[in-house]
Amino acid sequence: MMDPTQFLKSLFDVAVERAHPRNVLQQALPLAPISGRVIVLGAGKAAASMAAALEASWDRPLEGLVVTRYGHSLPLRSIEVVEAGHPMPDLAGADAAKRILALASSARENDTVIFLASGGASALLALPDETVPLRDKQLVTNDLLRSGATIHQMNAVRKHLSSIKGGRLAEAASPAKVLTFAISDVPGDNPDVIGSGPTVPDETTLSDALAVLKAFEIKPPTSIISRLENPLSETPKQGDPIFNNTEFHMIATPHDALLAAKMEAERQGVSAVVLSDRIEGEAREVGKVLASLAKHTADHCEPFKRPVVLLSGGETTVTVKGSGRGGRNAEFLLGLMLALEGHSQIHAISCDTDGIDGSEDNAGASVGPESLKQLQSMNIDAAACLNDNNAYAVFEALNSLIVTGPTLTNVNDFRAILIA
Amino acid sequence: MMDPTQFLKSLFDVAVERAHPRNVLQQALPLAPISGRVIVLGAGKAAASMAAALEASWDRPLEGLVVTRYGHSLPLRSIEVVEAGHPMPDLAGADAAKRILALASSARENDTVIFLASGGASALLALPDETVPLRDKQLVTNDLLRSGATIHQMNAVRKHLSSIKGGRLAEAASPAKVLTFAISDVPGDNPDVIGSGPTVPDETTLSDALAVLKAFEIKPPTSIISRLENPLSETPKQGDPIFNNTEFHMIATPHDALLAAKMEAERQGVSAVVLSDRIEGEAREVGKVLASLAKHTADHCEPFKRPVVLLSGGETTVTVKGSGRGGRNAEFLLGLMLALEGHSQIHAISCDTDGIDGSEDNAGASVGPESLKQLQSMNIDAAACLNDNNAYAVFEALNSLIVTGPTLTNVNDFRAILIA
Repeated sequence: MMDPTQFLKSLFDVAVERAHPRNVLQQALPLAPISGRVIVLGAGKAAASMAAALEASWDRPLEGLVVTRYGHSLPLRSIEVVEAGHPMPDLAGADAAKRILALASSARENDTVIFLASGGASALLALPDETVPLRDKQLVTNDLLRSGATIHQMNAVRKHLSSIKGGRLAEAASPAKVLTFAISDVPGDNPDVIGSGPTVPDETTLSDALAVLKAFEIKPPTSIISRLENPLSETPKQGDPIFNNTEFHMIATPHDALLAAKMEAERQGVSAVVLSDRIEGEAREVGKVLASLAKHTADHCEPFKRPVVLLSGGETTVTVKGSGRGGRNAEFLLGLMLALEGHSQIHAISCDTDGIDGSEDNAGASVGPESLKQLQSMNIDAAACLNDNNAYAVFEALNSLIVTGPTLTNVNDFRAILIA
Repeated sequence: MMDPTQFLKSLFDVAVERAHPRNVLQQALPLAPISGRVIVLGAGKAAASMAAALEASWDRPLEGLVVTRYGHSLPLRSIEVVEAGHPMPDLAGADAAKRILALASSARENDTVIFLASGGASALLALPDETVPLRDKQLVTNDLLRSGATIHQMNAVRKHLSSIKGGRLAEAASPAKVLTFAISDVPGDNPDVIGSGPTVPDETTLSDALAVLKAFEIKPPTSIISRLENPLSETPKQGDPIFNNTEFHMIATPHDALLAAKMEAERQGVSAVVLSDRIEGEAREVGKVLASLAKHTADHCEPFKRPVVLLSGGETTVTVKGSGRGGRNAEFLLGLMLALEGHSQIHAISCDTDGIDGSEDNAGASVGPESLKQLQSMNIDAAACLNDNNAYAVFEALNSLIVTGPTLTNVNDFRAILIA
């Protein structure tokens, strides 16, 4: 077998490729409409690459606008692409969202609106209701990001502050036909959670949003409270006629990507299992639990026979208390590394499939049996780094950061633990 | 199949029975010594029941003293049993420890010292060095219990404050023969961790102990610092001649108990897997991770075919922030319940095999698909209860506490999740 880290990295590459729009959009498309305008809208880390795949597939006039994260752009033929802030919304995103909403509103009955949704859209499509200043929305978003709230919980709040999320884009485009193509980056692949569901019925309510703020003891500005306590702020729900002429197509999911990685491992002669496509929990604690499974498997060939790769997806959370650097994949790996205590048979990688772990320049990192010892020899206190949320520094020192740059897709986190 | 909760409870009962001294001590015993005194010492939640099993097996004069937790006693023939405080050491424990140390010191070359070790011994054998007031040791123990430190980390501190732990009991008994019989309640079954290893070489050092206090930002009283900074406080290590005439026999482990539960499930026609015998991590976060495995298994028959029981052992931790009631099993289950979101196919139980979850009167509890809905109908906010560390109240309201009383053994936590 090749070098364990290289082997695990090859599984990550296959998982990302399986979820890339160029490989999955075309087969999901119907024939191009022969009449009417086709207005292509989109938001997310894969927005530009999804639009590029659409332009390559449909040989007819296309117009529209997609918004993606800074650095996740691609040159397009006729669809405009703009870059904006993520995970913190900025004015570029707010401006793009306003134009996207206006384009949707301009559609007439015979037109087709294509919405290309991928992870990151929630932050990129920041169009707070006019009663909510962007600054107030940024404040509450920042509190939510640091609270340990799940993506479901954050989106329940964001949808009810927005003029475009939670079905409001479909409302604007009605009665034109609305086709949504989505790449899921959320546990459970729920359409109303991906990008906060601008084109689908909202399953969350105003009282869910208020409950989230209460649960995490977030005290939002008055504008936010007024908005959330006003019954007129409720989003459109299942059964609303605005959804009569809409279709939703999921073109890639975390599970698809994990199964592709499993097949690749087996092609290379190593058995692999998908533990779960939706692991949630505080990143460092998830690291401890998966370490306990890996050590038990190493020592007892139970519940899986060795050698085996344990694959998992989903999105862990990080409750920020320190002042260091590092995304949730690095923090997960540091928790794992400490719990593995240098176990001789275990290697692991953890990366964000979008190529960017949190707000850093790495996709993720790798750990091996020697990592802890190497840190000790460099006089780096791994536990102290974890306490300071400074996992990036650990993997930088170990020279084991995995840097891919933006992958232009996003099926959430990818973890692979090899028990040799 | 019988009622799912009853089925899971039957697996727990089998696991406890597999680890009970009356079923496992006799087969591990050599022939009774024909000459010399046999001094039986012991500490832990199974101390009285281990001593009872010894009295039932060896038909020769036995003397000695064992210390167990309040309520974990049994009438014995010739061995004295005393009860003491756990998890907070008290004067009864300190007095028993002093007498146990004196009995060990009284042994001569031809005598045999039997040490019966089980979980809880660390707190019960509280014999701080004379330079450390019991009150100071209680303070630091309390801080450690509330910090989220693992049992390994707590014991590194406790061993270096003690006159009896970390090999010092063997030191006192030397050169008599010392036979230790142990029931493991610790991840990894490391002899020097069970009861803080009074009869085995200590693998931890003074600097480990200081590092633990630093990592959890615990500021101990001066007496503790002086003790830990004094090189003369170092415990005896592997290779020390005091261990030349010692033997160590593990008679029951968490893994044994989990395998017995697995066999029982299969006898009843339901497939079962042992995920790990050593799960560690913050209890509520472990709940989220196991929920993600269970939901994935339910939805994808992966990584295990349904129906299946996911078994696991080990010891989670609870970082206390609220003022409610509940041990780590209840807190795990509440985290699991919230993450399962009422999944229709999943039932679970989690219990401490010693019969006491934390400091409460229950061994653990159960959850089912209806639990969350029932709480809502009673206007109980499960998430708020979790935030207040008040899981006991939730399961009390659900009438799903599992109450066994002390089981007189202890192989740590037992979790079983049925995916129907």
